[in-house]
Amino acid sequence: MIILGVDPGFQVAGYGILKKEGNKAYLLDYGFLKMPPAKSLIVRIGLFHDFFTEKIVTWKVTDIALETPFLGKNAQNFLKLGYLRGNLYLLANKHNANILEFAPREIKQTITGFGGASKEQVARVVQQLFPGLKDPKKLDVTDALAVTLCGFWKQKTTL
Amino acid sequence: MIILGVDPGFQVAGYGILKKEGNKAYLLDYGFLKMPPAKSLIVRIGLFHDFFTEKIVTWKVTDIALETPFLGKNAQNFLKLGYLRGNLYLLANKHNANILEFAPREIKQTITGFGGASKEQVARVVQQLFPGLKDPKKLDVTDALAVTLCGFWKQKTTL
Repeated sequence: MIILGVDPGFQVAGYGILKKEGNKAYLLDYGFLKMPPAKSLIVRIGLFHDFFTEKIVTWKVTDIALETPFLGKNAQNFLKLGYLRGNLYLLANKHNANILEFAPREIKQTITGFGGASKEQVARVVQQLFPGLKDPKKLDVTDALAVTLCGFWKQKTTL
Repeated sequence: MIILGVDPGFQVAGYGILKKEGNKAYLLDYGFLKMPPAKSLIVRIGLFHDFFTEKIVTWKVTDIALETPFLGKNAQNFLKLGYLRGNLYLLANKHNANILEFAPREIKQTITGFGGASKEQVARVVQQLFPGLKDPKKLDVTDALAVTLCGFWKQKTTL
């Protein structure tokens, strides 16, 4: 089982890739894709698609883990997040991967033991779990690793 | 200019394809893709992607016309509509097409002369414009042709 966790966004998309062997997790890859805000949505969707196609093919990803989105204040951002998620669903289809979805509260609860944890608290636990993590800097990366870990621990397939 | 108008949906996705030569419009193709509701979202996104890839390649589509979505009562449906739209954006990227977007009111205004027109009124005008239209049956098809016609008349590129 090789899990790609993604925290999608049109400016920065964080990701983590874990390999599951028995009860052991091996961190294969992590980082983020930064996309130029000056580029059109069409261009950025192409970049996003190509970036994650390469990751899925290179690492032979079997499962894609995502956080369930909730409608915030900005309905257009929510819709656009759907564009990126729709691309990950397409990649799941084309590369025979499963989609694993977790509610934000469930992720925080799983990682920190507390469903109301802050992003910083999640980041701290993730860094304790992967002490070799080279200064992930962006919370997008620790968020993506948190959802990847959820996929590792919970392995609940939806859709 | 060859315009593909799509009315995306996970059960039925209507489409129309118009060729623009000078001020004349030639209707190249129209119809709908019906997707089995029992299939997962992942499978249906794959079907949607393959169906419209084939249409874009076959007809050498240069522009994809869409209606701007508005958040209705169901936020999850709104998000899922984003999955299909995101796939059309990806196809625009991969096949060098433009995306043309029109607000629902703008489409009704353009087609019927009245921004508050019903779907049935829009359907009637579309059928008058294309008298050869073989019983389109579904409003999804006339809706898709209405947005295609907007692309033909207004040719306003966004994003």
